[in-house]
Amino acid sequence: MVDVAVIGAGQTKYGNHALGLKGMWAEAAERAFSSIDGDFSPSQVDEAFIGSIAFGGAQLGNTAALLTEHSAMDGVPVRRVENACASSGFAFRDAWMAIKSGEADIVVAGGIEKMNDLTPERKRYWLGVSGDTEWERLAGLTFPGTYALMARRHFHEYGSTHDDLVNISVKNHLHGSMNKLAHIQKEVSFEKASNGFMVADPLTLYDCCPTSDGASCVILAADHVVREFTDSPVWVRGSGAASDHLALHDRPSITQLRATAASSKRAYHQAGITSNDVDFAEVHDCFTIAELMATEDLGFAERGAGGQFARNEEGLLNQGSVTINPSGGLKSKGHPLGSTGTGQVVEVFKQLRSEVESNRQVRDASIGLTHNVGGSGATCAVHVFGRDRN
Amino acid sequence: MVDVAVIGAGQTKYGNHALGLKGMWAEAAERAFSSIDGDFSPSQVDEAFIGSIAFGGAQLGNTAALLTEHSAMDGVPVRRVENACASSGFAFRDAWMAIKSGEADIVVAGGIEKMNDLTPERKRYWLGVSGDTEWERLAGLTFPGTYALMARRHFHEYGSTHDDLVNISVKNHLHGSMNKLAHIQKEVSFEKASNGFMVADPLTLYDCCPTSDGASCVILAADHVVREFTDSPVWVRGSGAASDHLALHDRPSITQLRATAASSKRAYHQAGITSNDVDFAEVHDCFTIAELMATEDLGFAERGAGGQFARNEEGLLNQGSVTINPSGGLKSKGHPLGSTGTGQVVEVFKQLRSEVESNRQVRDASIGLTHNVGGSGATCAVHVFGRDRN
Repeated sequence: MVDVAVIGAGQTKYGNHALGLKGMWAEAAERAFSSIDGDFSPSQVDEAFIGSIAFGGAQLGNTAALLTEHSAMDGVPVRRVENACASSGFAFRDAWMAIKSGEADIVVAGGIEKMNDLTPERKRYWLGVSGDTEWERLAGLTFPGTYALMARRHFHEYGSTHDDLVNISVKNHLHGSMNKLAHIQKEVSFEKASNGFMVADPLTLYDCCPTSDGASCVILAADHVVREFTDSPVWVRGSGAASDHLALHDRPSITQLRATAASSKRAYHQAGITSNDVDFAEVHDCFTIAELMATEDLGFAERGAGGQFARNEEGLLNQGSVTINPSGGLKSKGHPLGSTGTGQVVEVFKQLRSEVESNRQVRDASIGLTHNVGGSGATCAVHVFGRDRN
Repeated sequence: MVDVAVIGAGQTKYGNHALGLKGMWAEAAERAFSSIDGDFSPSQVDEAFIGSIAFGGAQLGNTAALLTEHSAMDGVPVRRVENACASSGFAFRDAWMAIKSGEADIVVAGGIEKMNDLTPERKRYWLGVSGDTEWERLAGLTFPGTYALMARRHFHEYGSTHDDLVNISVKNHLHGSMNKLAHIQKEVSFEKASNGFMVADPLTLYDCCPTSDGASCVILAADHVVREFTDSPVWVRGSGAASDHLALHDRPSITQLRATAASSKRAYHQAGITSNDVDFAEVHDCFTIAELMATEDLGFAERGAGGQFARNEEGLLNQGSVTINPSGGLKSKGHPLGSTGTGQVVEVFKQLRSEVESNRQVRDASIGLTHNVGGSGATCAVHVFGRDRN
């Protein structure tokens, strides 16, 4: 079976962009193309998958083809992949399978979201529909409210506290402050993050990711062509994906995302590793409680010990057992929904090639992980990457 | 490399449904499951791809997971594939690649659209955005108007006439009148179709497909497990897909869909056949002119000879060289956008197993084709199926 590597990756800065959809995509694609060490032409791309949620909000349709047309990939078979906030995590998985199928040698996976063109009402709509509608949204539950329920329950079951969440926020802001592509490039103090404006009790402003624009683009290649393009490929060592009940009340527990646990189990097995082998992870911290739970679901902490993990600063850059969100994560790097999954891959690609800002480089990084969640956990994709093949 | 077969397929009737999204999907999935000859459980599905355009219009999100949850495929990795009206054609292609990748043995590809819940304004919006927005839609060009331009140009370049289009309409209504799953099950006379209410000159009501609800579900399997489920598999012999410029003015010609030509070339090559070997084809006749052009782009008629092909009734059931749209096509069977691509596969599956109504069975059918177009031709997926493996 063919092995797959990432040979190029690029993204826009995340934030409030003057560029529109086509401009952002062209910039991300151009950065990915030019990150390839050898000769490369966009016309060599055999297949493309682009993740996005809210194209409709931008009043443009059939956008996958529109975007590849605007990045010199004329004629390429392309489709949009939508899976709420896990859209481009799944676009990446599908790109990986396209190469493994033998149908394609070079495949683009990307993601994009333009959130700051939307009116506040439309933003709420597109965000809200990523969770359950019939039992939750139409009853008034917001997205922060959904994760607030998880936080309250975690506090109750395991004795974790809001201070644990504050630690996560402070850490991710610190990491993001060193990332020139991050939406929010500033540190926050523990005191400031402790006393943030309340959004959904117990989650404050500093527990919630910002509303970002952005695009990301990743180029995957089959093992037999990789060396034409780079001597420093980043190998995809494992891919796992899963789904779960959309509504919280249908799940056996709301302090675990079962889709994360199932996805990571599969990805670790394929990679032939355990969670102990992971040097750093880009996890889906749409809210700080989501990162806390992810550290458990991905196996970095025991079930219920995510609060302690955060309290002990285990995820802090080059300090603890595994660096969590060296990019700043969704909290600080930003969260342009459809772009987030492949944006995580961009970070892993650069970390494993020692191409990030030196002050936030994970030391001796040889295995990285991406964790991309859709909605409140109804979909999830986890990927394991390595400097070495397997 | 692993070969792939369709082992089960089912769909709802197309039309104006009382059922909502979940109900329609559950019905289509149940029909697909129960069409499998051997023992089968939905929990055996390894991966799923569901095509749809307008979920947003239905005020539900993260819907791929919602639908698999409502069809007993709990936990399966699933995503929505969106590519305008080619959404489930691409969902099928992605399902096929998932199996060829070795990652999955049994995969579901499906599609769904609930159009009659939408207000007229929302319908126009979701339909309109499938074509170019900036140069066409915002300048007032409707979707029928887009295809009307193609028709006028074809008449001008090749001497085809509206009577040729009427022939296509009459044929598809005749085929659909025998299909119990079709939206419009009635014949129309040449005279009536000639004098239809004008929609976009030269296209009348009888040149345009209806606004349909519906869902379809197809189950694919890897060669090494096929015989556990059926002795009458339908093999996927070739898959081709492509994209094109979204705006008409960027294309070298508007009397050809280049994406169709490229897709079919690839699919024929993979199947080891030519267009002459195709016994019947389900083609994307959102408008009659689209079928006329497809007969050329798929190689059933010479370039410019699509009018003559229609005039000679070459596509009529068991009369001409190749039966076109034995189901009734989008014109008569109906066009629930996201469901159309896998709905075409349902028809091919049943035809090749001699399971359709006997009066519309294609005689000695051994090779069938599906042709699914996104928007005005910016995306296309073509698949070739056979009773024999290759």
